[in-house]
Amino acid sequence: MKNTQFLLAKRPVGTPTRDNWEQVESDIPELGPNQVLVKIAYISLDPAMRGWMNDGKSYIAPVKIGEVMRASTVGEVISSTSPDYREGDYVFGHGGVQQFAVSDAKDLHKIDISIAPLERYLGVLGMPGMTAYFGLLNTGQPKEGETVVVSGAAGAVGTVVGQIAKLNGCTVIGIAGGKDKCQYLVDELGFDGAIDYKSENVKKALKTLCPEGVDVYFDNVGGEILDDVLTQIRMHARIVICGAISQYNNTASVKGPSNYLSLLVNRARMEGIVVFDNVKHYGEAAEQMAKWIAEGKLKAKEHVVKGIEHFPETLLMLFNGENTGKLVLKVDNE
Amino acid sequence: MKNTQFLLAKRPVGTPTRDNWEQVESDIPELGPNQVLVKIAYISLDPAMRGWMNDGKSYIAPVKIGEVMRASTVGEVISSTSPDYREGDYVFGHGGVQQFAVSDAKDLHKIDISIAPLERYLGVLGMPGMTAYFGLLNTGQPKEGETVVVSGAAGAVGTVVGQIAKLNGCTVIGIAGGKDKCQYLVDELGFDGAIDYKSENVKKALKTLCPEGVDVYFDNVGGEILDDVLTQIRMHARIVICGAISQYNNTASVKGPSNYLSLLVNRARMEGIVVFDNVKHYGEAAEQMAKWIAEGKLKAKEHVVKGIEHFPETLLMLFNGENTGKLVLKVDNE
Repeated sequence: MKNTQFLLAKRPVGTPTRDNWEQVESDIPELGPNQVLVKIAYISLDPAMRGWMNDGKSYIAPVKIGEVMRASTVGEVISSTSPDYREGDYVFGHGGVQQFAVSDAKDLHKIDISIAPLERYLGVLGMPGMTAYFGLLNTGQPKEGETVVVSGAAGAVGTVVGQIAKLNGCTVIGIAGGKDKCQYLVDELGFDGAIDYKSENVKKALKTLCPEGVDVYFDNVGGEILDDVLTQIRMHARIVICGAISQYNNTASVKGPSNYLSLLVNRARMEGIVVFDNVKHYGEAAEQMAKWIAEGKLKAKEHVVKGIEHFPETLLMLFNGENTGKLVLKVDNE
Repeated sequence: MKNTQFLLAKRPVGTPTRDNWEQVESDIPELGPNQVLVKIAYISLDPAMRGWMNDGKSYIAPVKIGEVMRASTVGEVISSTSPDYREGDYVFGHGGVQQFAVSDAKDLHKIDISIAPLERYLGVLGMPGMTAYFGLLNTGQPKEGETVVVSGAAGAVGTVVGQIAKLNGCTVIGIAGGKDKCQYLVDELGFDGAIDYKSENVKKALKTLCPEGVDVYFDNVGGEILDDVLTQIRMHARIVICGAISQYNNTASVKGPSNYLSLLVNRARMEGIVVFDNVKHYGEAAEQMAKWIAEGKLKAKEHVVKGIEHFPETLLMLFNGENTGKLVLKVDNE
């Protein structure tokens, strides 16, 4: 039994290309004590992966050259030397971009596929869902009646942010690329409005849709859109910096928000979040989200691409805005 | 009796020049009910004045063309139709850049020159002192043992921020322009270190002086220095955005902080402040500051330039970094 793996072959400059990766067929190592062999079913594709490919200090160590690319994964236990896991269990872990992963038992979490399908544990019930939940509620602190704007609104995190904001009694405006995505946000997810940044003037549209200004802005994209929203924030606004996908493939330096002095004028704040800080509370959040899903109040959507061999080009879909909902790579082709 | 006034003649592009101002000799209007005529002794010169000269929405309305330039002032009451003020009282107000001001009694505050000299009520005991006090303590929230960095450190606000941080048990590093200012911060005000941004590499110096990183950064300058500090912040750092004097005379757009994603990596926040929000608590703060001054724990320094006719060029000293401590314009020449 061979294991198809994607290794980081060299660090990208700008947008990653196929030659940043090396696809190899490896042997599966023997299990040590308290280890688990997982057959990976779905691999999570996240904007943050672009950052992990860079060298330098960040919130997490970079992936090393020659290492299997880091990724969250869900799959089925094939064999185990841990008393806590047995064949047939379904687990979440950080298995990486490969078909099979050997993990320490302590790094895995069991998942219950009677509550939700396997891939959903990479989306609403996984990191993106947790990011949305804690980022919005703890850092954004939306109050009933306030206006919440989210960028990357049709993505894995954005779709959840908007829906949780609605559940908290807010007016919610999403910013996304393309008519279809915008329609999806309003028609399917119940957003109060959506702005297609590819065809609309974002600043003008915000003025129309948020006449009293923006109380909470959940930013996944950075760049010009962050600057546009900064011009429309309200007194004591909270800006949650979750990511800056528009800047991750920059070869020049990141575009800083020129309008940041709006923070001063409006006594507003901008705060960065990293989901891992909330690990102790994932359980409560997942329970709440599963309840909302069961009640039909929170809709989940995964965008599934099949075949691990398509990993390099599938990852780029994130940066080209080609996915709606959570982008996952299904390891096999069926 | 004539009143020398400086009116805003036209809005500046970039650095203000003499022709942005019109110097006029006016009559002093009769007092209406509950009004006070004040002979202004000192005019406060503040970086914020540059912003008030611009058109457009901000935290305060712009000064109109043809209006007396807005400024905080201290002076002596000459005549009054208010029962609350009488000839010989000393008052703080927003008298503007002129020799005499007619103010509504409700817009003035009596000051006690037995506690501190008149001009100090424009500095440590005035807006700059309040800005430092509330900005640092309420928004920066420094804890004992933390490292506080302040830019514009030798200015009216910076000198007070640093000293209050020291009084709160912090390690304090100031960033200022020039050897003399840096020496003053360390030798006279008890800062733990100072960085001369004109001759040193700020990022390198921060690494040396703040080996564990920066917990609180009080920013008066913006621009490159904000970006340098962002690379050195510590987990959960607080950045207080008080001003951005390096950017006020820009003719191009403001330089946004390219390194703002350090907020994400470090789960840090950046928050804007406007001193006026604390008006209800000025009394407590002034009392505390006066106590510190009396105990010799807080040093005050004013940089006095004489002669209202020198207003235009004296204002520019702020942007050229020519003042140490609070810059005030003494109305008369003696």
